Amino acid sequence: MENPVTVEVTRGQLVESRHRGMAVVVDAEGQILFSAGDIDAAIFPRSACKAMQALPLVESGAADAYGFGNRELALACSSHSGEPEHVATAASMLKAAGRDESVLECGAHWSSHQPVLIEQARTLDRPSALHNNCSGKHSGFVCTCCHIGEDPRGYAGFDHPLQQAIRAIMADLTGAVLSRDNCGTDGCSIPTYAVPLTGLARGFGRLATGRGLEPIRAAAARRLIDACMAEPFYVAGTKRFCTKLMQVAPGKIFAKTGAEGVFCALLPEKGLSFAVKAEDGASRAAEAMMAALLARHFEKDSEEQAALMSLAHHGMTNWNGLAVGTVRVTDVLFA
Amino acid sequence: MENPVTVEVTRGQLVESRHRGMAVVVDAEGQILFSAGDIDAAIFPRSACKAMQALPLVESGAADAYGFGNRELALACSSHSGEPEHVATAASMLKAAGRDESVLECGAHWSSHQPVLIEQARTLDRPSALHNNCSGKHSGFVCTCCHIGEDPRGYAGFDHPLQQAIRAIMADLTGAVLSRDNCGTDGCSIPTYAVPLTGLARGFGRLATGRGLEPIRAAAARRLIDACMAEPFYVAGTKRFCTKLMQVAPGKIFAKTGAEGVFCALLPEKGLSFAVKAEDGASRAAEAMMAALLARHFEKDSEEQAALMSLAHHGMTNWNGLAVGTVRVTDVLFA
Repeated sequence: MENPVTVEVTRGQLVESRHRGMAVVVDAEGQILFSAGDIDAAIFPRSACKAMQALPLVESGAADAYGFGNRELALACSSHSGEPEHVATAASMLKAAGRDESVLECGAHWSSHQPVLIEQARTLDRPSALHNNCSGKHSGFVCTCCHIGEDPRGYAGFDHPLQQAIRAIMADLTGAVLSRDNCGTDGCSIPTYAVPLTGLARGFGRLATGRGLEPIRAAAARRLIDACMAEPFYVAGTKRFCTKLMQVAPGKIFAKTGAEGVFCALLPEKGLSFAVKAEDGASRAAEAMMAALLARHFEKDSEEQAALMSLAHHGMTNWNGLAVGTVRVTDVLFA
Repeated sequence: MENPVTVEVTRGQLVESRHRGMAVVVDAEGQILFSAGDIDAAIFPRSACKAMQALPLVESGAADAYGFGNRELALACSSHSGEPEHVATAASMLKAAGRDESVLECGAHWSSHQPVLIEQARTLDRPSALHNNCSGKHSGFVCTCCHIGEDPRGYAGFDHPLQQAIRAIMADLTGAVLSRDNCGTDGCSIPTYAVPLTGLARGFGRLATGRGLEPIRAAAARRLIDACMAEPFYVAGTKRFCTKLMQVAPGKIFAKTGAEGVFCALLPEKGLSFAVKAEDGASRAAEAMMAALLARHFEKDSEEQAALMSLAHHGMTNWNGLAVGTVRVTDVLFA
């Protein structure tokens, strides 16, 4: 199945580049309300599914035992920019469990967000694992292990009990079979499993609705989603897209990006769940697609809808601030 | 016309993302030897055509008058990383014409190459126009104007005599009609004209062969191409793809990237010219496509062919250095 062109990048009067993509919206019962492209194709959710991976942190009682609030829970679901608040919060999570960054298995990298990178370059010799965009998730992993008395060493590995537990959770939520056959290694070294985009959307929907989940899981899921919506800065960072999306309508939108053009979102009040993947892996395409899909579900001409559409259709300027083109979604997303 | 998938990005055992693209190879007579996708579609060459835009610098006699050698000429054709040698050479070009960076109209930006950006952040308050990746091209523009007695002010504008001259040159080389209708504004504020990919390839081929060009233009073109091949660091920078491609076979490959997934290259000894565009604008796709196309024209199992194929098919590692996937070209490019 061909994936349709969902996003165009223009320059002058012409289209300069085109992005194809898949998109699916499901309702509270998991029924498909909208789809475009090959939504049955298996895709790696990458960081978009961090809220699913953070469930053991809450379900195990670790989050409560260590006194974690919304910021810590949001950070456990985050791909953060490595800003000082992110780094400090990850460090404090590890400290609560009596550990430090030496236990983290995510590797280290400079911020991928330029203004933060510049500040890091001026203040650090080199980044540590705490600066890794996944350090909140990994700190959550370590805290979970420590709380239940599991040795955290090797927690990123396919066979570690924590990853086994996460695999079972993700299989339950998405309805997909997860094994070594559809497993890849993520940027931060944990397993990532390719699942159909529809399954990913349905799984996310269940985080909001609790449909078919044990009460403890339903409560943990809702708590994580609410924490992210309450502290969107801790899910991404200053001027980052996830943060901006959630700030459009505080408490009404949950949104999380993943590498290679994946984006998941929820409108919990409406029981709606959204998942998109840019065929080529481009973030700019996934972002525009998601903003446009969300916009459809806000009141016509409302401030929220206008703000979302301005994230879906936006101008590009050059180094002199001149308008040179636009990123815009195609009619495919408004069918 | 659908553009075929030319590059796949894998993770684990699966394809995670796909890039579609157009590619064309023409011989010394401009005949098409190979094509894939919609090669008649008009695309913005962006920075890939800087060697064409640098012709007036040589043809006018400015390069000789100011004593420019291979480094200055290569920099005039470059999208450089803003490394100290690039910045110093651009400054010295302007100084030769009795000017300084205040005359540059390209705008300023931090290096887009992370190691250079980190060094810049540690040593600069903010970047200047000299750090702009296009500062060599713009310095060449200023030098051309100064040498021929034209006021350089406004040299980036559509109606400035320099841009008129460049427009005539590009129309001549590519065989395309250039007007406001197919004109966009580039990142550095000069006009960029959408031309068919085939026209771009033929135009580049004529830079190497001189076919149908006045002797002065043919000589200027060959001098610029030779300068870039002699000083590949000045065309891009440390570990940059254009530089690496040209270093594979010194003096045998000319290569130049452009924003939004454009890449042009020449094998001057063979009279072959190459142009590719990734439909989605992805550099990683354009790079892999170009390396694979070039590899086909080197001796089977030679060191050069192996080096080019290792740039076309390459592994990706994560923050811990673990192998996580590959970028690979599809059979479409080997038809």
